[in-house]
Amino acid sequence: MPRVTDPTAPHIALVGATGVVGTTLLRLIEERGFRYRGLDLVASARSAGREVTVEGHSCRVQDVDGFDFAGVDIAFFSAGAGVSRTFVPKAVAQGALVIDNTSAFRMDPGTPLVVPQVNAHVLGTRPESGVVANPNCSTIPLVRLLRPVQERWGIRQVVVSTYQAASGAGYSGVEELRAGARSVLDDPDSAGVTGTFSPSLAFDVIPSIDRLLDDGFTFEEQKMLQESRKILELPHLDVTTTCVRVPVANSHSEAAWIECHEPVDRGELVRLLAGQDEVTVHDLDTVGAFPTPRTAGDPNRVHVGRVRVAAHNPRGFWLWIVADNVRIGAALNALQIAEELTRRGAL
Amino acid sequence: MPRVTDPTAPHIALVGATGVVGTTLLRLIEERGFRYRGLDLVASARSAGREVTVEGHSCRVQDVDGFDFAGVDIAFFSAGAGVSRTFVPKAVAQGALVIDNTSAFRMDPGTPLVVPQVNAHVLGTRPESGVVANPNCSTIPLVRLLRPVQERWGIRQVVVSTYQAASGAGYSGVEELRAGARSVLDDPDSAGVTGTFSPSLAFDVIPSIDRLLDDGFTFEEQKMLQESRKILELPHLDVTTTCVRVPVANSHSEAAWIECHEPVDRGELVRLLAGQDEVTVHDLDTVGAFPTPRTAGDPNRVHVGRVRVAAHNPRGFWLWIVADNVRIGAALNALQIAEELTRRGAL
Repeated sequence: MPRVTDPTAPHIALVGATGVVGTTLLRLIEERGFRYRGLDLVASARSAGREVTVEGHSCRVQDVDGFDFAGVDIAFFSAGAGVSRTFVPKAVAQGALVIDNTSAFRMDPGTPLVVPQVNAHVLGTRPESGVVANPNCSTIPLVRLLRPVQERWGIRQVVVSTYQAASGAGYSGVEELRAGARSVLDDPDSAGVTGTFSPSLAFDVIPSIDRLLDDGFTFEEQKMLQESRKILELPHLDVTTTCVRVPVANSHSEAAWIECHEPVDRGELVRLLAGQDEVTVHDLDTVGAFPTPRTAGDPNRVHVGRVRVAAHNPRGFWLWIVADNVRIGAALNALQIAEELTRRGAL
Repeated sequence: MPRVTDPTAPHIALVGATGVVGTTLLRLIEERGFRYRGLDLVASARSAGREVTVEGHSCRVQDVDGFDFAGVDIAFFSAGAGVSRTFVPKAVAQGALVIDNTSAFRMDPGTPLVVPQVNAHVLGTRPESGVVANPNCSTIPLVRLLRPVQERWGIRQVVVSTYQAASGAGYSGVEELRAGARSVLDDPDSAGVTGTFSPSLAFDVIPSIDRLLDDGFTFEEQKMLQESRKILELPHLDVTTTCVRVPVANSHSEAAWIECHEPVDRGELVRLLAGQDEVTVHDLDTVGAFPTPRTAGDPNRVHVGRVRVAAHNPRGFWLWIVADNVRIGAALNALQIAEELTRRGAL
């Protein structure tokens, strides 16, 4: 049982406990046996008061407005950037170390942006800001694969198109996709259901995620560039992206074209990637094999397939990447940050 | 009425008349008033004998095996590469000019590969082989946009990820998607329905279209490289692609990253693209506007959006392209080839 009486185990709070990331974090804490001394479930007013079962006991969700963070060692925030901007400063002031799943503090110079498999070394001491930021869901699997490639061949350019699932917009996104799909199946001329997505995501693909910036890129696309640079400590890394929502319930996919400074050998590349922590290369032995969001398997691993070097440009190669955006891209990465902080005694 | 008594109008045959491309070709012949003297509907044994209504009259579908092409001026083939390989030589020997929608003859040096908006000039005389090939559905909209870019700035590299609809696999592909989606909506753990697609395309994306080649690319991906080079007459053009099937009924999308030899000005680029025949640029005036398969509008136009130049690499820009794969990518292009041949008297 993860709940222990050990006084050195942290007291944790989950802000956004009823959302898709919060509930997955709870499940992962149980699955991985993350040891904690005490647990508070917290959410915005809309969800406060609900009862959630944790380790067989009913636990009441508390309202973040008015919640007292005193005595909390680690506060996980996954209730949106607005909630984080308002309540993270209070949590830090009251002594909690915050692991923030939102975009609110990622680019703040005093806040480390961490993918434990890539840059755990920045977690040696408690961060200046009191916050460790969890990167964007599409950035995490990408940088886990870029790091060894950069070390081996050096990267000239990364061109990525994403195939992002509805769950990136929370439970309501998945429900809207399902309702819209039913509507279009019943009447092919139906406009589907909109709200979270516009137009409807039912049997459609939408090349627009998060808000549009002045330069014509979306914030989602900018995140993949800026966050990759920060995590990999490569301020001039050239990553350019088109982020697209697809009618898939869960798990993001990415088609990534990576051009290096030197010719790449496919055999060496697949062995290098397969040797990374928690990475499965599907076409290591079976050329052309590939993962898909619904068939990839273990949701706690990054799945790679269709690894191929271009005949006419052997410096460049393609990867097809599938990763559970709620686990790999959010909750699992956040919990692995907490595990790393605990192991290093950096709380 | 397209059927005329004018003896100079061609007698046409549609091989694959009951498939998704064949039926769309019939509809387009009516919509565009393409004049013909006589019409034969032809299909493989499986569909022969069916009755199809053309201009209010019932027309019986004839079996391609045994069909006499004598007297046919133009034979459109869209019944798969196997049928074309078997019956196109006979049609040509019997005097028909063939417009072939399949991959069977595209790379044959004696066969022009034509997108009328790009290289109609190769249609000046009757082709040596008796065949004009219609390119792959994803290649057509792409080269229509690449040509003016190449002429203005010169292209260094094109990196494309596709989002291809179920109708690329015919009516059965669309039906399988719908049946699979119903199955998954009823039971989220259902494996969906497979057959045309594997795994099921329902709420999933599949990075594999057409057969796998020895170099790890799929034939679909190879087509986009080889065909673009042939159509644009640029034998060293660098086009690299990941082709992905998405759970959309009709219309393919492409996220295309195009790197030029010189810096590109966005304003000039959108005006250049908007000035192309039958191209709509959605973000000409509204930055960030975009087409999607279900909302793009006029299916006889190529739709472009999300046109953006990378701030850190002004030689490169992204296009989001949506085009009806059955019309733009097959039937309409084939009919426009026929219109061009008729206009030029090259039959």
